[in-house]
Amino acid sequence: MRRVAIEFAYDGTDFFGYQRQNDVRTVQGELEKALERVFKMPIQTYAAGRTDTGVHANGQVAAFDCPNDKLSENDIRNALNANLPKDIYVKKVWFTSENFNPRYEAKRRIYHYYILNSKMNDIFLRRYAWWFPYELDITKMRAGAKYLIGTHDFTAFSKKGEEEIRTERTITAIRIVRLKKNLILVRVEGISYLRGMVRSIVANLVKVGVGSWKPDKILEVLESKDRSKSAGLAPAHGLFLYKVLF
Amino acid sequence: MRRVAIEFAYDGTDFFGYQRQNDVRTVQGELEKALERVFKMPIQTYAAGRTDTGVHANGQVAAFDCPNDKLSENDIRNALNANLPKDIYVKKVWFTSENFNPRYEAKRRIYHYYILNSKMNDIFLRRYAWWFPYELDITKMRAGAKYLIGTHDFTAFSKKGEEEIRTERTITAIRIVRLKKNLILVRVEGISYLRGMVRSIVANLVKVGVGSWKPDKILEVLESKDRSKSAGLAPAHGLFLYKVLF
Repeated sequence: MRRVAIEFAYDGTDFFGYQRQNDVRTVQGELEKALERVFKMPIQTYAAGRTDTGVHANGQVAAFDCPNDKLSENDIRNALNANLPKDIYVKKVWFTSENFNPRYEAKRRIYHYYILNSKMNDIFLRRYAWWFPYELDITKMRAGAKYLIGTHDFTAFSKKGEEEIRTERTITAIRIVRLKKNLILVRVEGISYLRGMVRSIVANLVKVGVGSWKPDKILEVLESKDRSKSAGLAPAHGLFLYKVLF
Repeated sequence: MRRVAIEFAYDGTDFFGYQRQNDVRTVQGELEKALERVFKMPIQTYAAGRTDTGVHANGQVAAFDCPNDKLSENDIRNALNANLPKDIYVKKVWFTSENFNPRYEAKRRIYHYYILNSKMNDIFLRRYAWWFPYELDITKMRAGAKYLIGTHDFTAFSKKGEEEIRTERTITAIRIVRLKKNLILVRVEGISYLRGMVRSIVANLVKVGVGSWKPDKILEVLESKDRSKSAGLAPAHGLFLYKVLF
């Protein structure tokens, strides 16, 4: 047995989220089905993070124990891609240490969120960007984002769910850039996140960008630790787990 | 009754082509369903060109007679977009002359074809670009494309189907550009086309780009007027009807 790590992309549109569940199509479920076809036995995988329904990944990372010691990294990659559906694709495979678990060893997780900021819709982006037709001022959004950098209790920027014991999280950087005239990228870099945290950050910064809130309202929401003060969640389909750093 | 023209985009992935057919989902079928919902009566439409199954459009143009004289251009646009499925979107509406038929009055039709030229696949482009993993030399492709400019019998660059009476067509320009390191755009501008003609042009130029053919083989294929000499068709999903000029 050798522990193998893979970096892979998926289009979240047609999955009920990352985590394996009975009777619905999930990323982990499809990945483990492909592994079972390749190795003729059930294989369990451990991923860096569980993305919600509709969320995409450019660079999710998972690890598993490979029962075949003869295959090269490239053989494993090709065998997996030949057995995966069209909306999952393995970009990289590498042999790693016996106990490598991406969830516990990830040092940084980078998320990308795309906003189509145009009166006119673009149907070719409908699965990959949030269409927000009112003008956004990204200078104001950047001013709001500054309050979020560092270690804070991010309860107000999360989704209800199983309660976490610790609600402090660390955001190391937020960059907001206009990639094209109408396409805005919000790039969030952090160590780990509460559920729905990036989508909540984006929804709140959009309130600032559109002029409904002043930038320092972000600080007020953060300090409230109260979800009801917050702007809710931006749609899942604009979000990508871009990269996991170890 | 006022004749109305519309410019609209669609994602061809989930349609059985443009033209209305019984029992299958087509672009024209969905457009006419939306018009019937808006105007409470059947409305016939006339389009600039019929795209094949899987082919997309950024700027298809159609015309129809509008039974309601009170609606503005913008009202019609909004009513249509509210009634169309997510993979069709009306960008522009304008009142036009009584007999305007886009098919006969189009002066130029511009098609865009996207090639993802990279060893690594990009699943977010899987519906919109042809993944071709072997290196393409676009300088050679441009040299081959030169032979196609002008008025020629394009039989060798077409798909079998109903035989055309006239097989001469005019291509006014072909531009081949690298949009990003791995993304190549082939832009074809012509007056009108035989069936499958742009996809055939792309498939033949790719033979040149990958080095299997010399650029002047394109002239040989053209002059043969023989489909069996030609490289066949590039996949439909890389092709976009980009713009129709009047």
